[in-house]
Amino acid sequence: MIYRLTLAYRGTAYAGWQRQANAVAVQQVVEEALAKLLGEEVRIFGAGRTDAGVHARGQVAHFPLAREFPRRGLVHGVNAFLPEDIRVIDAARMPDDFHALRSALGKRYLYRWSQAEVICPLVAPLVAPLDRRAELPRMMAAADWLVGRHDFSAFALAGGSHRHATRRIFGVGWRRQGPEIWWWIEGEGFLRGMVRSLAGTLEEVGTGRRSVEDFRRLLQGAARGAAGPTAPAHGLVLERVLYSPDVVA
Amino acid sequence: MIYRLTLAYRGTAYAGWQRQANAVAVQQVVEEALAKLLGEEVRIFGAGRTDAGVHARGQVAHFPLAREFPRRGLVHGVNAFLPEDIRVIDAARMPDDFHALRSALGKRYLYRWSQAEVICPLVAPLVAPLDRRAELPRMMAAADWLVGRHDFSAFALAGGSHRHATRRIFGVGWRRQGPEIWWWIEGEGFLRGMVRSLAGTLEEVGTGRRSVEDFRRLLQGAARGAAGPTAPAHGLVLERVLYSPDVVA
Repeated sequence: MIYRLTLAYRGTAYAGWQRQANAVAVQQVVEEALAKLLGEEVRIFGAGRTDAGVHARGQVAHFPLAREFPRRGLVHGVNAFLPEDIRVIDAARMPDDFHALRSALGKRYLYRWSQAEVICPLVAPLVAPLDRRAELPRMMAAADWLVGRHDFSAFALAGGSHRHATRRIFGVGWRRQGPEIWWWIEGEGFLRGMVRSLAGTLEEVGTGRRSVEDFRRLLQGAARGAAGPTAPAHGLVLERVLYSPDVVA
Repeated sequence: MIYRLTLAYRGTAYAGWQRQANAVAVQQVVEEALAKLLGEEVRIFGAGRTDAGVHARGQVAHFPLAREFPRRGLVHGVNAFLPEDIRVIDAARMPDDFHALRSALGKRYLYRWSQAEVICPLVAPLVAPLDRRAELPRMMAAADWLVGRHDFSAFALAGGSHRHATRRIFGVGWRRQGPEIWWWIEGEGFLRGMVRSLAGTLEEVGTGRRSVEDFRRLLQGAARGAAGPTAPAHGLVLERVLYSPDVVA
């Protein structure tokens, strides 16, 4: 049987999602909690490898288990063994062919900035500073060009393992709330570091260091290094993994 | 000369605002940062003694200083010596008779609950669980009775040093956002533990364990212990200290 976990975590204390040799990753902590609950070793497969320091509100993972286990038992049972910065939000038994990554249709990320002179410590763990001269209309105009299929080579971090750099972006959204700017991006897939590299480049457009036209040209497959800096990890949240409604409602 | 600091902090790691002998309080940490910046011992006076674990978005404190110090120097200078969970949001030189507590006209607090089955760890440090059976309309109907002058003896924690327990409440406000319920209360003053005791009692009204009428009777000066339990500290935020607009804009 295949079970799904929907997970939320503060990435602050972790070396990212994926299990590593010399650092604590979210995957490892969840696997250890599952093993304590179930009394057996469990390997889980996540839908997205969030980087060190990146948060998640709706990461999805699956794992095989040879026995029936009730939903509430999984949710509250695993949580009882997890540290407070990681939580199982939901769980379900899935069809046998469900795979957290291969069944996914896409993902939605949120990037949060603040233009406050001093970022309030109540939100600071989730919000990156944005140059106070950055103008939202310029950033929005540039981001409009993201929708559709593009070659994101310029926005890939070293260390990614993609065969090609073309990805389809479904849409973007914006919200201004007090000194904060929230930017959502939804697409079929993302290269390693791509959302943060886009965020850092959009900030350059916002301040006028880069033109909207230059941003648009980067989407046609420029060299790595042609894009702007990588925005800080703690401003990024994996909001949701998208599945067909008949798989995950 | 008298200077004002407006401070925000996550209360999680602190024994409250007020300096204590055997625990780290916010006041002490700010005084030490000020001393490092100014090169002299400084005693600050806060507008409200938030309890252990209670947060603040707009705590106000004042201190005397014999020399001119520019606003930006105070804000960014003190912040350079503060841990990341405490921040000076604003600073200003004030009239000589300004006193953070005695000049205040009142305070506004926010209490945040969530009725989610599992509270997302991105907000969990700021949100207390609310019984999922609690009904917002019942809580709102009870809280309407708070506005005006009442005897809050039933809602005072032991250890407070009030001469009388009558306080004027200016108003309350509510917001429902997804699984969260936000409750604001604004008044001229609050007894020790009063907002959290009111929150815990409102939860009892919400679930039907206590009637709106019973809540109303508690506002006429019942004995301590007649009210409900004290809601958790981490759901409470001191939002703002209120001053006359000609003192603090």
